Amino acid sequence: MKRTAFFISDGTGITAETLGQSLLSQFENVEFIKLLRPYVDTVEKARDMVQQINAAAERDGIRPIIFDTVVNKDIRNELAASNGYLIDIFSTFLAPLEQEIGDGSSYSVGKSHSIQHGGLYKERIDAVHYAMDNDDGARTEHYDRADIILVGVSRCGKTPTSLYLALQSGIRAANYPLTEEDMERLQLPSALKAHKHKLFGLTIDPDRLTSIRHERRPNSRYASFGQCEFEVREVESLFKRENIPFVNTTTFSIEEISAKILVEMGIERRLK
Amino acid sequence: MKRTAFFISDGTGITAETLGQSLLSQFENVEFIKLLRPYVDTVEKARDMVQQINAAAERDGIRPIIFDTVVNKDIRNELAASNGYLIDIFSTFLAPLEQEIGDGSSYSVGKSHSIQHGGLYKERIDAVHYAMDNDDGARTEHYDRADIILVGVSRCGKTPTSLYLALQSGIRAANYPLTEEDMERLQLPSALKAHKHKLFGLTIDPDRLTSIRHERRPNSRYASFGQCEFEVREVESLFKRENIPFVNTTTFSIEEISAKILVEMGIERRLK
Repeated sequence: MKRTAFFISDGTGITAETLGQSLLSQFENVEFIKLLRPYVDTVEKARDMVQQINAAAERDGIRPIIFDTVVNKDIRNELAASNGYLIDIFSTFLAPLEQEIGDGSSYSVGKSHSIQHGGLYKERIDAVHYAMDNDDGARTEHYDRADIILVGVSRCGKTPTSLYLALQSGIRAANYPLTEEDMERLQLPSALKAHKHKLFGLTIDPDRLTSIRHERRPNSRYASFGQCEFEVREVESLFKRENIPFVNTTTFSIEEISAKILVEMGIERRLK
Repeated sequence: MKRTAFFISDGTGITAETLGQSLLSQFENVEFIKLLRPYVDTVEKARDMVQQINAAAERDGIRPIIFDTVVNKDIRNELAASNGYLIDIFSTFLAPLEQEIGDGSSYSVGKSHSIQHGGLYKERIDAVHYAMDNDDGARTEHYDRADIILVGVSRCGKTPTSLYLALQSGIRAANYPLTEEDMERLQLPSALKAHKHKLFGLTIDPDRLTSIRHERRPNSRYASFGQCEFEVREVESLFKRENIPFVNTTTFSIEEISAKILVEMGIERRLK
């Protein structure tokens, strides 16, 4: 049985989606059709939403679940009149928080993902450009400005992780691919030695690496299991020998890898 | 007066942080010290957390606010015994949701940001590599695979937006810088013409662009107000002439720009 879930907001919808996804993921026996509806910021748009909600209720034969972070009361009242089961995220928590904090909420839309909120925004953009410019060992002369330098074999997840750290947290992450030559030399490349305390290793199971590389260069030596297995073994032994902290990325998402890196490196994220 | 807020989870902490930030941003008169504490996944770590919470309570002279998405009951019980004001996000919503859905929650940790959850993960990684390879007009021969092609003047926000769309939503976004030559030619570059329905324009206020470019190349013609003003005016008139939808990025964050693009282009994000 399928059941529709709506994530509705008068802002970007990021909070409604994040919390809604977290909660729905706890119900593994139900298949949800999930629909994100950002910028529902007028009564007219809310009425259109009600039609979508009611249509889904009829189609599914069961009322949809609605997670909303709408701040405007008139819009919320429209949604409440739909045939959906409404989880009103802000209302649930704002009243008790107002009491605890002893101050009124501003009830303003889209505060948490706005550009005004905190000086972190510029750092995030700068960090994205830093990650782009220092991707894949392209340059090593700016490592003094890095917060972290990710190292590992080709296609173990360095690039997406660097970019995620930059976008989410404003962390300047360079990344450097360890190649066969580095492994044969049996030591860290000199560009990395000077910044050893910034190094964090990523590793991956050889069979997973083989399949990722096969998509990129099918039937190449680069993608062969033998080559992947050799590189992973050498790199892991390098990490251990040099005392470089590392994580195996095989079963973890970018979000999980990034959170683990910050915990292990003891980096306290600046929150906006 | 400063007051400490903790975002605590036995997983990545993304949900606790996202919701906590949204709620706290509604209280503009209070200065919060915000601390993210992911992977609090043992009773021992929870006890360490309690010490941190109690220390903050003493330091601030007021009890900290705690947003937690801890699934494990023993760990939650430890936190509840601290001197903090606990907002227990999952407990608040899971019981009513269980009743509505008529099925038990699995109470499993870190489901929503795990790699297993949905086929979208691979698409996101592929989209990141697509965005990297097709950044800044580097190549135009793969535009048939693009979901969106962002166009605009240099440093108006194309690259971070492309990467955000890729990482968050698995959207393949290329980006192409419109240069002075394109403007003088008074028409779309031919590489773009063939994909006109995929184009989305970004623009920016000239004074903001001037200040961004100044940081990159101080006192250059590229960063002069006259040049920025000329480029922006030409590009906006190109967007209008060619009926290319566009958004002014000056006062919007990447999150907001990305959400607006998807709404305007009518792209329904696939949610995990």
